Amino acid sequence: MPQFAERMQGAQRSFIREILKVTADPTVISFAGGLPNPASFPVDAIKAAANAVLTESGASALQYSPTEGYLPLRQWIAARYRAKKGMDVDPADILITTGSQQALDLAAKVLVNAGDPVVIEKPGYLGAIQALSIFRPNWRSVPLHDDGPDLEALEKALSGAKLFYAVTSFQNPSGLSYSEEKRAQVAELLRHRKCFFLEDDPYGELRFAGRDLPPVYAQRPEHSLLLGTFSKIAAPGFRLGWIVAKGEVMERLVIAKQAADLHTGSLDQMIVERFLRDNDFEAHVLRIRKLYGGQCQAMQESIARHFPKDVHVTRPEGGMFLWATLPEGVSSMELLKLSVAEKVAFVPGEAFHVDGTGDNTLRLNYSNADAATIDEGIRRLAGCMEACRGGKCAAKAGAQHGGQG
Amino acid sequence: MPQFAERMQGAQRSFIREILKVTADPTVISFAGGLPNPASFPVDAIKAAANAVLTESGASALQYSPTEGYLPLRQWIAARYRAKKGMDVDPADILITTGSQQALDLAAKVLVNAGDPVVIEKPGYLGAIQALSIFRPNWRSVPLHDDGPDLEALEKALSGAKLFYAVTSFQNPSGLSYSEEKRAQVAELLRHRKCFFLEDDPYGELRFAGRDLPPVYAQRPEHSLLLGTFSKIAAPGFRLGWIVAKGEVMERLVIAKQAADLHTGSLDQMIVERFLRDNDFEAHVLRIRKLYGGQCQAMQESIARHFPKDVHVTRPEGGMFLWATLPEGVSSMELLKLSVAEKVAFVPGEAFHVDGTGDNTLRLNYSNADAATIDEGIRRLAGCMEACRGGKCAAKAGAQHGGQG
Repeated sequence: MPQFAERMQGAQRSFIREILKVTADPTVISFAGGLPNPASFPVDAIKAAANAVLTESGASALQYSPTEGYLPLRQWIAARYRAKKGMDVDPADILITTGSQQALDLAAKVLVNAGDPVVIEKPGYLGAIQALSIFRPNWRSVPLHDDGPDLEALEKALSGAKLFYAVTSFQNPSGLSYSEEKRAQVAELLRHRKCFFLEDDPYGELRFAGRDLPPVYAQRPEHSLLLGTFSKIAAPGFRLGWIVAKGEVMERLVIAKQAADLHTGSLDQMIVERFLRDNDFEAHVLRIRKLYGGQCQAMQESIARHFPKDVHVTRPEGGMFLWATLPEGVSSMELLKLSVAEKVAFVPGEAFHVDGTGDNTLRLNYSNADAATIDEGIRRLAGCMEACRGGKCAAKAGAQHGGQG
Repeated sequence: MPQFAERMQGAQRSFIREILKVTADPTVISFAGGLPNPASFPVDAIKAAANAVLTESGASALQYSPTEGYLPLRQWIAARYRAKKGMDVDPADILITTGSQQALDLAAKVLVNAGDPVVIEKPGYLGAIQALSIFRPNWRSVPLHDDGPDLEALEKALSGAKLFYAVTSFQNPSGLSYSEEKRAQVAELLRHRKCFFLEDDPYGELRFAGRDLPPVYAQRPEHSLLLGTFSKIAAPGFRLGWIVAKGEVMERLVIAKQAADLHTGSLDQMIVERFLRDNDFEAHVLRIRKLYGGQCQAMQESIARHFPKDVHVTRPEGGMFLWATLPEGVSSMELLKLSVAEKVAFVPGEAFHVDGTGDNTLRLNYSNADAATIDEGIRRLAGCMEACRGGKCAAKAGAQHGGQG
């Protein structure tokens, strides 16, 4: 057998995707996934858009198209940043990507040499850990508080770092957001540092409480990349995301994109652009916000009713996830074994940590179940937490959990 | 400014895509592109398929889906290899990719360390040169004869090589194919060598002359990857390709795919699968073969009529390209300057060479123009070739042509 590339030696399949296979059983109540609720998909409007595009522009919808993306779609994205966030974004600053997962791959490819120090939040987004790990960074992680990263730890971590990756609003996995003050402080820390900033904002449109805040990118566009996606505001099956970046950064991203897949699907881009043009997008997004806001509240109320009081849970103002911290020494991986027997699934938190910690944490998704199902699942999970008491769920020494992949 | 990753230092935009910008002028006769003819796109059948998918399975077409790809589509691909080529391919051996450009990126990611010797044909496919160059191989190239690679040169190049990349049927850029004998000889050379084999077959279905031959992969499935695509037999706007591979190779490709973009578009995959199921695919492919066969013949006849006799041109049995070799010392880059003034475009051959040679070669695409346009373009191009005589088109010493990108 010839040798594989070194970059693949530590790579593993996503632990979440492996758990999701267990939850294929329809009798399992799953808080494990990160899927948008299909009730939020505008199927009929998409069908009408597909029909219109193929009727009016079939040949160009099926042909190769520019690497940068479909210009009217890039114009829509730029106009929305200007209108909703007051940001100075030009269509030329937008690169359409094959989902924002591809944006992570392109950013890593363009920015990260093996061994480069790369900073991520603790807990951090698993998809970014996977995409960036292939380029073999030297990971550093910075604890998240309820209002954003620990500034002292961040300042220390940024010293000599090549890249800082952050999800600043309704983070996956924690549900936490950077406060206005923290955004300004992070932007200030990045000033004059030779460090790229990769800001991932897949959930920014999904705010159901609190006041809308612009991304940190707005304060620090030089050396920064801002990622967005249609996965949570239209549908993930399109694989449509984007990168906002300027100048030399954008120039290199376009070269890497061309080598990676030439361009993102022409038909997909034209369908989504047509959907946005022919429908009331504000009303559509408002429906998703209300849906997820209601489900988040239901989960919080169920947690208040059922969970042991020594389990700490975050209070998101948007997005799709809650984050729970068990008492020190209790292993969420052991808890999962109990809960799967009770037909409830979640994602143990260790996978979201690059330093091997986090075994007493877990992620709960609320976007895919109604209030009654949520309550039943939380009740069962709380029972498992009670059953864990007295050392029953202590982490096994040297346990192998499949890692961060 | 922070430093970009070293892998991007030599990377440039595709020279072809830059030429294509020049040819946006509709009065230019372009033999430069590599686009399928939009007349071959089954627009109405695709529209019907999109409608059916969104009506019957809207929620799953718009949701996240498995990294490996949509199972019925993988089953169709495997069944076609079994039926048409007698190959032992299982659906589990198929990974759906975002075009076969992504397959090149994934293969390079999984197989190539910086500095690894990688063998490619001379001339070689530009998209592969771009995708693989990002992973910084040590390139070796092997001359192509009319029936396949020079075996002596190939044997030498394979010594200690990590990977051999080849387009074995109707190659881009040369139009050349490996004969049955050469296929067997290449398979024999690969036996017992610690070298991966990456066989790219985007045009295999587009044979309009000669006898159908199975890929080399069929003789050497261990350590090999076979690439295919729907771009030339359905439409490129979908960005749908695939990799055939087994065991550990497939396992690592799936991990890399997950990190690269999670999965290829769900809707695109379901539309194409539905199109294949509801239509007569053989009749559809036969129409494309006849279309391109006719255009290839038209270009060959025009070349016989107009080109100077000292210009050598290949005689493809399928695909979309012809390859011309000018007399030694005549620069196709200089010829392009003359021909663009005469409103005819082609791609100079140097971009398809990893060793800086090939300045006296050029690629001609025949899939996108009718016979009358082809004749007019070839007539004008022949006039430019005549005008080149007497040292007028000699390469400038140390000229910079934008390189292979």
